[in-house]
Amino acid sequence: MAFTTKATIASFGGQLLKLSHKSAVTGTDMALNLYLPPQSSTKAVPLLMYLSGLTCTPDNATEKAFLQSSASARGLALLFPDTSPRGLDIPGANDAYDFGEAASFYIDATRAPYAQNYQMESYLTTELPDLVFREFAGKLDPSRLSITGHSMGGHGALSLYLKYPGKYRSVSAFAPIANPSRCPWGEKAFSGYLGDDREEWKKHDATELVKGWKGPLNALIDVGTGDNFYKQGQLLPENFEKAVKDAGIEGLELRYQEGYDHSYFFMATFQHDHVNHAAKFLGL
Amino acid sequence: MAFTTKATIASFGGQLLKLSHKSAVTGTDMALNLYLPPQSSTKAVPLLMYLSGLTCTPDNATEKAFLQSSASARGLALLFPDTSPRGLDIPGANDAYDFGEAASFYIDATRAPYAQNYQMESYLTTELPDLVFREFAGKLDPSRLSITGHSMGGHGALSLYLKYPGKYRSVSAFAPIANPSRCPWGEKAFSGYLGDDREEWKKHDATELVKGWKGPLNALIDVGTGDNFYKQGQLLPENFEKAVKDAGIEGLELRYQEGYDHSYFFMATFQHDHVNHAAKFLGL
Repeated sequence: MAFTTKATIASFGGQLLKLSHKSAVTGTDMALNLYLPPQSSTKAVPLLMYLSGLTCTPDNATEKAFLQSSASARGLALLFPDTSPRGLDIPGANDAYDFGEAASFYIDATRAPYAQNYQMESYLTTELPDLVFREFAGKLDPSRLSITGHSMGGHGALSLYLKYPGKYRSVSAFAPIANPSRCPWGEKAFSGYLGDDREEWKKHDATELVKGWKGPLNALIDVGTGDNFYKQGQLLPENFEKAVKDAGIEGLELRYQEGYDHSYFFMATFQHDHVNHAAKFLGL
Repeated sequence: MAFTTKATIASFGGQLLKLSHKSAVTGTDMALNLYLPPQSSTKAVPLLMYLSGLTCTPDNATEKAFLQSSASARGLALLFPDTSPRGLDIPGANDAYDFGEAASFYIDATRAPYAQNYQMESYLTTELPDLVFREFAGKLDPSRLSITGHSMGGHGALSLYLKYPGKYRSVSAFAPIANPSRCPWGEKAFSGYLGDDREEWKKHDATELVKGWKGPLNALIDVGTGDNFYKQGQLLPENFEKAVKDAGIEGLELRYQEGYDHSYFFMATFQHDHVNHAAKFLGL
């Protein structure tokens, strides 16, 4: 077993596994949680990967977003990766909540001192799924994968989906950072991880990436109108929506949820719709 | 408004209110959370009070037990009180997780230095519901109240239900301390709050109290077989079950859930059944 099992927790008829492994890509130990629904004891089920927001470990969403309830009902597995490598001795990496540790923005950094370990795009698209599908062969179906996420993880879900056509069957996002090149969080992260060339930033920005998308988008996005980060212009879902519309792309459902904030209460409320959205495209 | 509103959070179509008030009974500020389901905007709905376990504030269950999802679907409100008075300068009250602050055991203490403020039974049966029903008149129906809880809060739910016949329409409990006079947690708490007279303890012990119960019990209890506290003899649900059976009382459903532990994952899995149990007796 490539994973160390830290806990096995009975949950909604299935099992929540708290795992860790030594990543060759990040050069660190990486934590993750994997929820196996009851259906996986008799057949290979599809997998929905959930990317968390700033400050989070894999545990926050596992404990507070309630996705397992719907995943159990629909028969899909959930994968909760971590938000960055941890435990590195990088000066300044723990000074702010929105840069460095727990704030990787799910890209491959090109600038020192982050380039060596902050290779989250490669980790999430190759090493981690390969390992999970290999170690849980028979329980997980490697041909059926979708992606979702919250806030920074919504950026991660949308941008990875758009960068790797065909890899994921569908995408959804809760309050995503939808145009990171144009918001303070994204500007700080991209300049720190990628440098100051804004043309490079576009390669990691969902609102730019979507302009080249072919076919239907299979995307669901929820944003709360009471979300302070939305009000502060950190999320900019309207820019993403306009880019989709201007490119004539079908298949985006963007919903503004009246009065909802940026918290896990918002996600717990609407997770059911996001799991059902994925399930529809995962053949369930 | 007798309450200070610290937060109003949109959640499952309703509102979660984080409140506090000055309690005349405990002599302290007391925190609580109140979930109002969408149905309460047009009519008075019944109320289910949830008592938390050792170490918890009102927030733990609010964030992790997901009772709100089912409460929203069924149309009942949820009240999450705190687990003790807080902020008192009582020597030793913060030295252990299982005695003093966050560990009131929901009784009226008779021993100094706790007797003055640790009057949680009075607080929960008079001041708090009176205040909540008065301040939310029209949204809550004071004639329809049920009670539930986890661990120490399961003890609280069962014992208050049995001490006040007719006050609550039904009771349920997740992994309750069902016979506190006979387990280490209960012995420590009862001797500290009540003194060493074990006859006094019986007045606060569900397994003793149930012997005098008349009529059906309207009780649902879930216990996980993988619960370490159950294995260590802190919960003793079998003693409660035997007392019920010996007294010829009907209406106890006690379920052992294979492999489940003592955590919020256990509660989140089975909360739906507990909300439905309450709803049945609350006329929903």
